[in-house]
Amino acid sequence: MKYTVEQAMEILERTPAVCTALLKGLHDDWVMNNEGPDTFSPFDVLGHLIHGEKTDWVARAKMILESGTAKTFVPWNRFAQYEESKGKTLNELLEEFASVRKANVTWLSSQQLSEADLDKKGKHPALGEVTLRNLLSTWVVHDLTHIAQITRVMAKQYKENMGPWPEFFRILSF
Amino acid sequence: MKYTVEQAMEILERTPAVCTALLKGLHDDWVMNNEGPDTFSPFDVLGHLIHGEKTDWVARAKMILESGTAKTFVPWNRFAQYEESKGKTLNELLEEFASVRKANVTWLSSQQLSEADLDKKGKHPALGEVTLRNLLSTWVVHDLTHIAQITRVMAKQYKENMGPWPEFFRILSF
Repeated sequence: MKYTVEQAMEILERTPAVCTALLKGLHDDWVMNNEGPDTFSPFDVLGHLIHGEKTDWVARAKMILESGTAKTFVPWNRFAQYEESKGKTLNELLEEFASVRKANVTWLSSQQLSEADLDKKGKHPALGEVTLRNLLSTWVVHDLTHIAQITRVMAKQYKENMGPWPEFFRILSF
Repeated sequence: MKYTVEQAMEILERTPAVCTALLKGLHDDWVMNNEGPDTFSPFDVLGHLIHGEKTDWVARAKMILESGTAKTFVPWNRFAQYEESKGKTLNELLEEFASVRKANVTWLSSQQLSEADLDKKGKHPALGEVTLRNLLSTWVVHDLTHIAQITRVMAKQYKENMGPWPEFFRILSF
């Protein structure tokens, strides 16, 4: 698939609703458990997605458009949500994510990016030169893979109940 | 997490809505592509979930409750949806899944299963003896892991656009 802003937005726009359909109203056992030390619970993933909206994707896209490779992206703090989500409920996080995502999608749509814009380059602190197209498609993939993570983490909570069945589910040992 | 019908139903009930939030209205490029030969597209996964509702989970649960290990489960045809989904639209599959799932959740709820019922055994053609608890928790895990699969398949469609970023996403090589 070729990257287009239009098809990318189809995913970006719906991710908050997907998270809500997946998590709202669930028992805490589904939402607050993780995969072991230093891994994310579904609650943590939501905070991570919010942090990305606030500090990463659009900030980096603006840096590419305004400064090219003259500036280097600020590294993503992958543990920021442990502090930032403290004291918040799952529903608050779902609403916050929907709100910050909506503003960012509106910004993306307003840019009317051309193919030449998508070819513009920025500087990633670990990966080196990346294009705006690379960044914007990774934003989409980041959504999708974190939805996969949420469901994998939830699935693992039931592994002990499955008897011999886990051997048919390679995802449970991932 | 201990298996309870109540917490399991929280997931079973919402999976059709999650699939709808995730897929309804998307461009075919997101829905009809797969991960290579003999793999499922999101469209195929929906057909697979429908086939399971019609032929597998409840049929096997009833077999355990009525016949124990005297009968062996009918093997699941993992490719049935290629025929059964032919000529159907994505929206038709989403509606069909919601409808067959609703009937099955109503059945599950009506059984008022006790812990003794959950310990009852049946015979799987490959795995041997399994309990009703094993079967019913696998039903939940099957939902969750297929949602993960749908999002992974979609994410992979953008891999080429990501430049050097795929190395940060181990799920893309899964």
